[in-house]
Amino acid sequence: MHGSIMDYPLTLPHFLERAGRLFGPVEIVSRLPDRSLHRYTYADFYRRSRRLASALQAMGLNKGDRVGTLQWNHYAHLECYFGIPVSGGVLHTLNLRLDPSDLAYIVNHAQDRFIIVDDVLLPLFQQIQDRVQVEKVFVVPLTGAPVTGMASYEELLEEGSGDFAYPQLQETDALGMCYTSGTTGRPKGVVYSHRSQILHSLVECLPDVLNFSQSDTVMPVVPMFHANAWGVPFAATLAGSRQVFPGPHMDPVSLLELLQGERVTFTGGVPTVWMGLLEELKAHPERWKLEPGMRMVVGGSAVPEQMIRDFDRFHLEVYQAWGMTETSPLGTFSKPKCYQAGLSTDELYCFRAKQGLPAPLIEIRTVNEQGVADEDGETMGELQTRGAWVVSAYYRPEGPVDNWTPDGWFRTGDVATIDPEGFLQITDRTKDLIKSGGEWISSVDLENALMAHPSVAEAAVVAIPHPKWLERPLAVVVLRAGQRVGVEELNAFLAERFAKWWLPDRYEFVDQLPRTSTGKFKKTALRERFATPGEGGADEP
Amino acid sequence: MHGSIMDYPLTLPHFLERAGRLFGPVEIVSRLPDRSLHRYTYADFYRRSRRLASALQAMGLNKGDRVGTLQWNHYAHLECYFGIPVSGGVLHTLNLRLDPSDLAYIVNHAQDRFIIVDDVLLPLFQQIQDRVQVEKVFVVPLTGAPVTGMASYEELLEEGSGDFAYPQLQETDALGMCYTSGTTGRPKGVVYSHRSQILHSLVECLPDVLNFSQSDTVMPVVPMFHANAWGVPFAATLAGSRQVFPGPHMDPVSLLELLQGERVTFTGGVPTVWMGLLEELKAHPERWKLEPGMRMVVGGSAVPEQMIRDFDRFHLEVYQAWGMTETSPLGTFSKPKCYQAGLSTDELYCFRAKQGLPAPLIEIRTVNEQGVADEDGETMGELQTRGAWVVSAYYRPEGPVDNWTPDGWFRTGDVATIDPEGFLQITDRTKDLIKSGGEWISSVDLENALMAHPSVAEAAVVAIPHPKWLERPLAVVVLRAGQRVGVEELNAFLAERFAKWWLPDRYEFVDQLPRTSTGKFKKTALRERFATPGEGGADEP
Repeated sequence: MHGSIMDYPLTLPHFLERAGRLFGPVEIVSRLPDRSLHRYTYADFYRRSRRLASALQAMGLNKGDRVGTLQWNHYAHLECYFGIPVSGGVLHTLNLRLDPSDLAYIVNHAQDRFIIVDDVLLPLFQQIQDRVQVEKVFVVPLTGAPVTGMASYEELLEEGSGDFAYPQLQETDALGMCYTSGTTGRPKGVVYSHRSQILHSLVECLPDVLNFSQSDTVMPVVPMFHANAWGVPFAATLAGSRQVFPGPHMDPVSLLELLQGERVTFTGGVPTVWMGLLEELKAHPERWKLEPGMRMVVGGSAVPEQMIRDFDRFHLEVYQAWGMTETSPLGTFSKPKCYQAGLSTDELYCFRAKQGLPAPLIEIRTVNEQGVADEDGETMGELQTRGAWVVSAYYRPEGPVDNWTPDGWFRTGDVATIDPEGFLQITDRTKDLIKSGGEWISSVDLENALMAHPSVAEAAVVAIPHPKWLERPLAVVVLRAGQRVGVEELNAFLAERFAKWWLPDRYEFVDQLPRTSTGKFKKTALRERFATPGEGGADEP
Repeated sequence: MHGSIMDYPLTLPHFLERAGRLFGPVEIVSRLPDRSLHRYTYADFYRRSRRLASALQAMGLNKGDRVGTLQWNHYAHLECYFGIPVSGGVLHTLNLRLDPSDLAYIVNHAQDRFIIVDDVLLPLFQQIQDRVQVEKVFVVPLTGAPVTGMASYEELLEEGSGDFAYPQLQETDALGMCYTSGTTGRPKGVVYSHRSQILHSLVECLPDVLNFSQSDTVMPVVPMFHANAWGVPFAATLAGSRQVFPGPHMDPVSLLELLQGERVTFTGGVPTVWMGLLEELKAHPERWKLEPGMRMVVGGSAVPEQMIRDFDRFHLEVYQAWGMTETSPLGTFSKPKCYQAGLSTDELYCFRAKQGLPAPLIEIRTVNEQGVADEDGETMGELQTRGAWVVSAYYRPEGPVDNWTPDGWFRTGDVATIDPEGFLQITDRTKDLIKSGGEWISSVDLENALMAHPSVAEAAVVAIPHPKWLERPLAVVVLRAGQRVGVEELNAFLAERFAKWWLPDRYEFVDQLPRTSTGKFKKTALRERFATPGEGGADEP
């Protein structure tokens, strides 16, 4: 017996129509390359997104054709987020921080038919132009400087028609694709469906997740070329929130100016962005007046508990989240439960520093050699997930993949614990875990502990080979300006929290840490640089 | 090209598992027939719902079998809400306010295999027992009095197993069914799917809709036998909200005691319930201390603007909603938009007194003889809707149905306007609309205006036949205790807002208005009673 309910596919035109009909006067603000602010409304966004869809169809776009975007976070990228999928095309966001050879590989692997590129990113695009097969390139004239020899995005829009009719879309049709920026092997493609993005948006908006409403002003600092800016532009448009985009100006002072000037109530990004912001807030506390209670979602890597405490002093609420390109990306979100209100401040920070509870329609488990691990907050295992927006395959994979279990769960490559309350805590990447004498040491736990030391600005811990213990931890530390601290003091600091055999055998002090294109510490580079066993290698860890 | 996303069906076991895993200590409170409070937790609810599912399967329940419930709002009914669908069965809620012959018809028409009935409702059930074909009846022992000759719900649960495995469910599988309580013809059955209820729950929880979170204490006053209590028990369980159920005690003082004692933050019901509550609050303002900002959702019929203003004085926030059994039932929800904050108080009340904006995944339009009506806030038309939880057919209809348009929209039978901001306003039921000399007069508008008069407690306006104008309005009025008011004064009061030809020709003053099983004015009865044209019928309306 089936329900007698209308067959109503979950597709993006519904969101666009709703936004255009109900939220017309709501503002969308974008920082342009010259630092000026571009302002328009949902009504403009609606009209232009539909013109884009119409123009792409007039160019001969077929359902399923990929359209690449090489753009910063701004209004035109938002138009692409909606205009490309509602035309039947597939939004393929290109990560402008990738190495040009990877970028060219991705464009060709996805078989992008058109590319829409910011004028200020043309120097990057020109590095790959001769290596990619693309039918046509459209340039978004953000600076107003004339573009010669290439088609203009604005002229493309003028060819669109206002009375565009959406193509028939199934909810399983592709909406967009992203490539992972993994440090091993070639980038791998992930294809999202209309259904997965609609469900993802609904859940992100829930009160105990991102809590997006019409009352919000939402600014994604996480790039729109990175896992759909965590889905924030889709979810904010569903909610009818006011939207603010930082464009290419991602330095702390530019971001703070925008957060303050536009009275932003929600923002999201990776920890390194907020580290810089926090330093500026601490240095000039009298200069900045942000909205009290502004929510800051942090993902991409774990945030040190100390950072949550520091932002609390400025009445800014940090929330951890965990996700991956392969999970659209919302997996978990960390907000203490209502009934935990009676816990001590320290206990609450402990929960807030975890990666949190699985979102509705997402399941998580940890698996180790003994099978599914106990959810005791201590037993580590590989984090596996399944759910309504978790990828089931890579796009045209090169070579064999082992990312799915026989019973259909996605293997994340993260090592984690789950506690009795259901909070996930990532303890490491499987490849970053330090296997010392048959025991596991979490590099992330050591890093977070080191970064809580007042003299330490940043710290990365990596495994280096050891003749007896196979691997031992090495800490690479960036000190705060003007600070000095010895190895003994750091190890004494760590010994308060960890067993002796967890303490790093060796410390290296550097001026800065190498980073991946998404701002994470590039541990492969550190391992290569410091691979030779240190002279002080402990015999009894 | 399709998205490469896991095939993850939207089914109720996910919600139940999530609630059991994450919200175990959260409380569920039920008022029992003896007025005492039954308290247990989500952990108990989870365990018992699964035992119910397991026991039903052990009884031989097959996928799609209907299980009827004849119950008030309480914990055992919540267990049925989840336990029956996750066992593969179909939850069929029986409206205990129906006439026994309709009730017997419904049980037989749905082919209910089992029925679970409150002990306090056995006298009602015994009126239909000989007329229905049911395999087995289980009695919920709410009073503790021994039940003889019938199986006990508690003994049924004891036969269930803790290690129950859910059956394979598709998202289109039937989850539950309700029969409409329409005043014309036989009740008609509506079958919901797992998918439709999951989507409905997600949208109900959104911040700009019911805004359910872990911080809420939710009390559905709307009966669980009426359109799934508007989906509130499903949505509250998704959110992990604390839940409170009033049991059979629906009088204003009992409800207020529960709202106050359990610190309820959200409640929902039909206007007549809130009218009684308001009278008690006004009579004894010092007696009650409800949670400031408690949300009260009102549906089923339009709420007079005056009632919203009155509750505001008690810091209680009234929200209008519109929906039907055929729409699961959430259709629209009325909350002024953020950018309307600059409107005057009177203008804001005007929007709050409308039925509101369509929910995400719901579309609305109004259609009259000229086609789709302008959304100008004035042009009336029949309200039509489509969306992710709108019914596409009745269950085994008797005779032809004309409730769907050729292009697939559901014809609601309501007459409405939609304004430029997108707010729906129901002006009437098509069958209650008064057609006077080729023009339409809204009975609902006249009723709301009359109920704003300080001497009027309640008012219903119906069409009575007229030799010249075909139909003319008759107002049936219940005065407040001790109040007197003349026809001239009421018409002068109405003349401030309406054209002269809208004013009722005739008034009848009565002690109370007849009501349907869901608390709406029973206009058919009024029309029959007052059908003879009044002597004062106006010649020039």
